Amino acid sequence: MDIAEDLAKKQKEISIAEFFEKNKQILGFDSPQKALVMAVKEAVDNSLDACEDARILPEIYVTIERVEKDEYKLTVEDNGPGIVRREVPKVFGQFLYGSRFHAVRQTRGQQGIGISAVVLYGQLTTGKPVKIETKIASEDVGYVFEILIDTIKNRANVLREEPAILNKKSGVKIEVNLKAKYVKGKQSVIDYLQNTAIVNPHATIIFNDPDGLKIKYERVWDQPIEPPKETKPHPLGVEIGEIMKIASLTNAKKISTFLTGEFSRISNNLAMEICKISGIDSEKDPKKLTLNEIKALKDAFTKVKILPPSSESLSPIGDTLIKKGLKNVLGELRPSFYSIPVTRNPSVYSGNPFVVEVGLVYGGNIPQDEPVKILRFANRVPLLYQAGSCALTRAVESIDWRKYGLEQRGGQGIPVGPMIILIHIGSTRVPYTSEAKEAIAEIPEIMNELDLALKESARQIRTFLIKKEVKTKLTEKFFLVQKILPKIAEKSSIILQKPVPKLEPVITKIMNVVWIDEKIEQNKGSAKIKVSVSNFTPEKKSFKLYGDISEGKIEVKSIKPFGNYDEKNDYILWEINDLEPLKEINLEFTVYDLKSEYGESVYYIEGINPVYVVGAEPLPGDWNIEALRSIIEEEEEEENGEE
Amino acid sequence: MDIAEDLAKKQKEISIAEFFEKNKQILGFDSPQKALVMAVKEAVDNSLDACEDARILPEIYVTIERVEKDEYKLTVEDNGPGIVRREVPKVFGQFLYGSRFHAVRQTRGQQGIGISAVVLYGQLTTGKPVKIETKIASEDVGYVFEILIDTIKNRANVLREEPAILNKKSGVKIEVNLKAKYVKGKQSVIDYLQNTAIVNPHATIIFNDPDGLKIKYERVWDQPIEPPKETKPHPLGVEIGEIMKIASLTNAKKISTFLTGEFSRISNNLAMEICKISGIDSEKDPKKLTLNEIKALKDAFTKVKILPPSSESLSPIGDTLIKKGLKNVLGELRPSFYSIPVTRNPSVYSGNPFVVEVGLVYGGNIPQDEPVKILRFANRVPLLYQAGSCALTRAVESIDWRKYGLEQRGGQGIPVGPMIILIHIGSTRVPYTSEAKEAIAEIPEIMNELDLALKESARQIRTFLIKKEVKTKLTEKFFLVQKILPKIAEKSSIILQKPVPKLEPVITKIMNVVWIDEKIEQNKGSAKIKVSVSNFTPEKKSFKLYGDISEGKIEVKSIKPFGNYDEKNDYILWEINDLEPLKEINLEFTVYDLKSEYGESVYYIEGINPVYVVGAEPLPGDWNIEALRSIIEEEEEEENGEE
Repeated sequence: MDIAEDLAKKQKEISIAEFFEKNKQILGFDSPQKALVMAVKEAVDNSLDACEDARILPEIYVTIERVEKDEYKLTVEDNGPGIVRREVPKVFGQFLYGSRFHAVRQTRGQQGIGISAVVLYGQLTTGKPVKIETKIASEDVGYVFEILIDTIKNRANVLREEPAILNKKSGVKIEVNLKAKYVKGKQSVIDYLQNTAIVNPHATIIFNDPDGLKIKYERVWDQPIEPPKETKPHPLGVEIGEIMKIASLTNAKKISTFLTGEFSRISNNLAMEICKISGIDSEKDPKKLTLNEIKALKDAFTKVKILPPSSESLSPIGDTLIKKGLKNVLGELRPSFYSIPVTRNPSVYSGNPFVVEVGLVYGGNIPQDEPVKILRFANRVPLLYQAGSCALTRAVESIDWRKYGLEQRGGQGIPVGPMIILIHIGSTRVPYTSEAKEAIAEIPEIMNELDLALKESARQIRTFLIKKEVKTKLTEKFFLVQKILPKIAEKSSIILQKPVPKLEPVITKIMNVVWIDEKIEQNKGSAKIKVSVSNFTPEKKSFKLYGDISEGKIEVKSIKPFGNYDEKNDYILWEINDLEPLKEINLEFTVYDLKSEYGESVYYIEGINPVYVVGAEPLPGDWNIEALRSIIEEEEEEENGEE
Repeated sequence: MDIAEDLAKKQKEISIAEFFEKNKQILGFDSPQKALVMAVKEAVDNSLDACEDARILPEIYVTIERVEKDEYKLTVEDNGPGIVRREVPKVFGQFLYGSRFHAVRQTRGQQGIGISAVVLYGQLTTGKPVKIETKIASEDVGYVFEILIDTIKNRANVLREEPAILNKKSGVKIEVNLKAKYVKGKQSVIDYLQNTAIVNPHATIIFNDPDGLKIKYERVWDQPIEPPKETKPHPLGVEIGEIMKIASLTNAKKISTFLTGEFSRISNNLAMEICKISGIDSEKDPKKLTLNEIKALKDAFTKVKILPPSSESLSPIGDTLIKKGLKNVLGELRPSFYSIPVTRNPSVYSGNPFVVEVGLVYGGNIPQDEPVKILRFANRVPLLYQAGSCALTRAVESIDWRKYGLEQRGGQGIPVGPMIILIHIGSTRVPYTSEAKEAIAEIPEIMNELDLALKESARQIRTFLIKKEVKTKLTEKFFLVQKILPKIAEKSSIILQKPVPKLEPVITKIMNVVWIDEKIEQNKGSAKIKVSVSNFTPEKKSFKLYGDISEGKIEVKSIKPFGNYDEKNDYILWEINDLEPLKEINLEFTVYDLKSEYGESVYYIEGINPVYVVGAEPLPGDWNIEALRSIIEEEEEEENGEE
């Protein structure tokens, strides 16, 4: 027989469940240790998504119990809206089934794969079914299920389905036995939960570990997250085949309504312009478009002015929460510099809106001689594995950090220094490199946005480092001028037998800065902070000074001699008026509720050229880069050459 | 309405084709440049697999033509067995359809995904169908197809299907238009084809690039590769759920035949022993096994002695071809050291046999100050992307190379130095991290084998570096002894007015080595190699000397004054008998057919303790580690402590 016939006989359809049964590493279940983290992650992600959809403040219980040597039982229970009875077997027992795949909006789950993967891994390694309890608010009774997956059919095998009185308004509880290894530290369940808490400050997560440890991540934000709105694909980057498919499925009867109805950011006027440029009758039936006409449409998209995607379908973390999150997690590392987090404007790849955010911290007790640590997040989910081939890591590696004051071999790779970088990408479709959702593909448009966001953050680091150097030099100068100049003047006057000259104008001319200095008196659980503000310029100065505390709470009555505490934004504002040359003002306040020693506060100034100030940053928003140019002119030029 | 009901309405099945349509990066089609490499790779892999199955020496034509700005047409044509008419729509137009998924044996394709991915990407980015020509040997007529994929149904949409007279015995030709970017250099089509040629020396590949360049990779091995045999899962590491599934599908009526029939390496006796240990009646119907009994079986597998998997289902590259392959590709780099490639014995993870191979080269013109280059291969397919999170890279990074004489920051990460590492893993199921098959998951069993193979290779490097140092020191000693000692003796004799003493016994005692030295006279396209062999020991020496040429061919008649050329194994053998102390023999030969300057030959010795020889290695197989111990004793001890 012909060998081709022979080979043909072996050809066979493969069910997606069988495929994953044989390739569980693609789902992230490579090792018992990782499997446990993956299972927690998939269950918690689903709970967070469901709560977000129902505008419920999430309260999630995660419990891990040891069953035998390498078998554990994981229970995840939420207060979400619950899952209706008829959907349970499909949601948990079928791969590629879900509500979020076809929707264009930012959610954690996207694929309809994750939770079925947990069920499959559990049954594969223990032979036991998963147990699910669900209750929805509009029904009095809940349901209990026990489910296995029939991998040949990719369908649930329901072993048990019973009504049950569940003592809750609504929610889902999943119990799964699985081969696992429980560890603490890097890439652990605790690591995942802690990082989840950073970027989901509206969620309370309670974790009971198998050793009896109980950790509660309390919410620090008591507003439910507004779920991102569904949108249509953005016209930019949509492929020819995709336009063909959308055209074949649309209800629109003519091109103009096809364009306005099936894509975002296309108005009637714009649709007419696109038709004109592409030479297509706007009344034509979209189902009758030829390949050449579709190519002409795609070309026209790039020739007209289309607004970038709206942020409605996206859910960036935002400046405030990135900073709060970083402060929360950094604790003992007490960095001496927090960058102003950079949130880029929404951009688009292949029609999918996305947004990139970067925050970074520097100094303090962060190790000096180790590679910079990168905290990666996608759609508010921490990424713990496959860092090496993730776009977020690669973007960091491809920047020449030496230009920004860090050590880096050959100007490539992870730089070395006391720095931590937080990177978040939010997208209606995060381009993960695999179903395990561990790393992000190097899509050119995303790499570009990452590069810009990182460089914007890196410039802040450089400015900080330069200012630090300037401050060091100014301190030396200060010392000389303040201590030695009067002595020289005194001695000279004796020798010359003339009166000691007035030194003030000389000193202020040489110094020409407003000097802000902080001294901290540590007490148990509290700290008294003293701030001196000295005017070493030849003129009177008036400006606003903001004190941003690094941790603890401010004792309002301790703020002396004046100053207003803005509770909402968590800073103290002093209005300093007409500070005379060579005069000093002393301010103080007390912070309490400290878990450890108080770090440094950050001071911001407004209403004064920041180039004349040492010890405070320009107020964000008021950030006057022009004024700073005079200090860092040289470096700016070098960089402009580079970009 | 209950929000849960609202959410339920949005739940929907997702077709696998739609899933990949929206996640083409998971298939490796992230960017136009990468997409082109992926498309070539999927088509060529399929051709190589088909030829292997049909025991045909592959001859594959790859042509890339520019259609317009960023659209290219790729054509891949092979002389394989062809695909029977009725299978064509499924093979090319349906995801998760294939012949290799269910078989336990080493093949390039495993998933039934790759070539459909090419079709999908082509239609998505150009709107055009793929064209396929196929002919099988037993029919006179071939067929031409044009196919699109209906992604909603995951089925082929056949636009054209016609008989055609194709001027060939058998084979497949695929033509696909796709959005692409053609580049040369790293991670290019040429890079992929060249690396494919290294590990598939039985294949001829002809490449026509869009710029008119034509490259032919000629086969250097004219035996077809014997296709690996199908086997059953190995009992070790098979999960409980898998045993349950196999038991539910088996035709065996009792446990004993179930064990011997469904698993490899279980004999009748062993089956009875397993039944006894697990306390299960060997006559029991496997379909009636309880969960506890299956757990007992799994436990028993680890308590009896099961042979490691046979190599029949695997296809390692082997020592000779790894070395040939490396020499072929390294050309101008001319390393001064080739390790003896390490092929580990087959091992097993989750019931899947696998084998790890490592070859490495050092020195020559390989850059000194760059990270070591890693050439990764899986099932004879080069891996070009996602190196950062691939088990093969991670295994290199986790070794402390400083112990083996390389530079490495903190004893972790990619070492720096003039070295190239080739790593191949062959498995009946390579655990790729995604469908793109770019990186391998960090399965503990695989990491362990990689670690052992790398360390075995690294020890060779260390020995080489130590011997190099020894040679440098001996050269100094040689100089002193040979030149200065006679002068001292002469002067002393004049001063003392006594005759010059006999120095030979002194010199040979101090030196105590056989010294082998090569001098090369480069000519155009050829080189004359002169080898001097000097006995600086106090005794007569007899041994065999093998000369292994680095490139070109040996001119047999040029071998003087004696010596035999072994054509099959490509070396010259000299038998040196009774070489007297302080005597020297001069040998020479000529190589021709050189593409560039001749590098160094490698010399091996046999029949003499290698510790007394400088300039030659112990013959592989005769590798007498005990004898070497005396040189490298100290380091060996340190290492024994480590392992």
